[in-house]
Amino acid sequence: MYDILVIGAGAAGMTSALYALRNGKSVLVLEGDSLGGQIATSPRLENYPSVKAISGEAFADNLFEQITDLGAEVEIERAIGIEKHAEGNFTVKTEYNEYAAKCVIIAAGVKHKHLRTKHDREDLVGKGVYYCAVCDGPFYKGKEVAVIGDANSALQYALLLSGYCKKVYMYTLFDKFFGDANLVKALRTKDNVEVRPNTNVVDFLGEGELSAIEYTDKEGNLCRQEIPAVFVAIGQVPDNAAFANVVDLDKDGYILADESCKTRTSGVFVAGDCRTKAVRQVSTAVGDGAVAATNASLYLESL
Amino acid sequence: MYDILVIGAGAAGMTSALYALRNGKSVLVLEGDSLGGQIATSPRLENYPSVKAISGEAFADNLFEQITDLGAEVEIERAIGIEKHAEGNFTVKTEYNEYAAKCVIIAAGVKHKHLRTKHDREDLVGKGVYYCAVCDGPFYKGKEVAVIGDANSALQYALLLSGYCKKVYMYTLFDKFFGDANLVKALRTKDNVEVRPNTNVVDFLGEGELSAIEYTDKEGNLCRQEIPAVFVAIGQVPDNAAFANVVDLDKDGYILADESCKTRTSGVFVAGDCRTKAVRQVSTAVGDGAVAATNASLYLESL
Repeated sequence: MYDILVIGAGAAGMTSALYALRNGKSVLVLEGDSLGGQIATSPRLENYPSVKAISGEAFADNLFEQITDLGAEVEIERAIGIEKHAEGNFTVKTEYNEYAAKCVIIAAGVKHKHLRTKHDREDLVGKGVYYCAVCDGPFYKGKEVAVIGDANSALQYALLLSGYCKKVYMYTLFDKFFGDANLVKALRTKDNVEVRPNTNVVDFLGEGELSAIEYTDKEGNLCRQEIPAVFVAIGQVPDNAAFANVVDLDKDGYILADESCKTRTSGVFVAGDCRTKAVRQVSTAVGDGAVAATNASLYLESL
Repeated sequence: MYDILVIGAGAAGMTSALYALRNGKSVLVLEGDSLGGQIATSPRLENYPSVKAISGEAFADNLFEQITDLGAEVEIERAIGIEKHAEGNFTVKTEYNEYAAKCVIIAAGVKHKHLRTKHDREDLVGKGVYYCAVCDGPFYKGKEVAVIGDANSALQYALLLSGYCKKVYMYTLFDKFFGDANLVKALRTKDNVEVRPNTNVVDFLGEGELSAIEYTDKEGNLCRQEIPAVFVAIGQVPDNAAFANVVDLDKDGYILADESCKTRTSGVFVAGDCRTKAVRQVSTAVGDGAVAATNASLYLESL
């Protein structure tokens, strides 16, 4: 029986483990994909406070070492269900095993929805094709960039990029945005943002790094634009359905919780990108990890 | 006219600057005391995710270098007032100067209230006398420690320490606690916590490091206990009164804001320990910094 079982070994999950272990709790971390979560795929992390530059992979490796040195157990198994028992304990099921724990922190993260292109160009991710403008935008200061998407994230990306990029091309599927009016209004005032409505980006071109995109315009003509960087913001996909018996999900599938990281079930906490929140960054993920583990530890002491 | 003026060069303030600068904003940081804020006084930081061990001072120095490399201007001047003008801009006054900015992030931190002892023993802070059990408690695993205080922070300190320390002595001024019932109830179940009510710790003893404390008991007798570490939790002191014309303060003087870091005044944001929140840690401070700067940047784009 573990004191705390953490679902997800991204920045939020591993930070939860760090704080829990330092509070003397036994901790098991389950990870369904690869260690480090989304941040591990970032080629260069420059916005983690006090660390000037580090690869996402090294960031994750350091954190992994930090928690395993403290005694964290980590298993590469996907959690597929949480059961709360009458006596208050939990069973977390994976494809292969069942684990018993006194409380659970869900830090399952989200995935950026990837653009489906004519050819599979996942090789260009991190090499001109990006899914986070906050993380990777500053590498293109003074350059031309493109944003794909029509909702709040895309609008925020375009606004932020317009502050330091030479020009921002925005590709949207329709002739309108599906985001907050104030963001749309703000975007309209930007001279260096050119919206290309009714377009569909269908392919990424380039050898080793992105050189151009192909898209269809309103009339269905296949067009090409040379561009060194494209920021795709067509949505994120949380994957919390398996836990809906113990937590409430919002309409997009995020786990409902305020900054206390407490869910509707006593003993179940949530940390990081899979929680309802506005800014999903490594800095906010570690903040959640500290809060979730502190509150989980206090919960355990109150049993 | 700066885009963003940040009040406070602790973890939250410097992280705000980091994110703002990366969004292409011009930033001035004002600090009234010393760079780094509270964290800079921590002898050894072991709970910052992905950084195994670093002194608080080095943590702060790195972050300072990170933001000045990006173009942050930093002045060692205490902000003593914020004025919002009809046209929406702000003037921030210090003892010596006035600075103009389009928006303001208040990250003024808090100070732990220090125990007033018979002799001035500030030399023992960090050497047996601590003000943060989460930060420094784990160095005393398996040892006996003392906690001074009778409210939520002291109760939380005692509960957390009881999880891995051999014994926790709790010194309280009266014969009752002034914290949440569930914390008090949880504490009562701990065999390794001994509450010493109606006591008043009057002095710290030791050369170079703490060796003992002196206290008066209920009858007024002067007593001594040998102990290697004492955790003082007699309150924190925010210092936000000077900004009350633009933000709302709670009854303890913290700036009212939820995790969006937005205050009641459009264009004034708040980050870190000076905000109303439950867990004050370097991890949660950097989380706030990211959120405050992102929302401040979006505010600027919306002007």
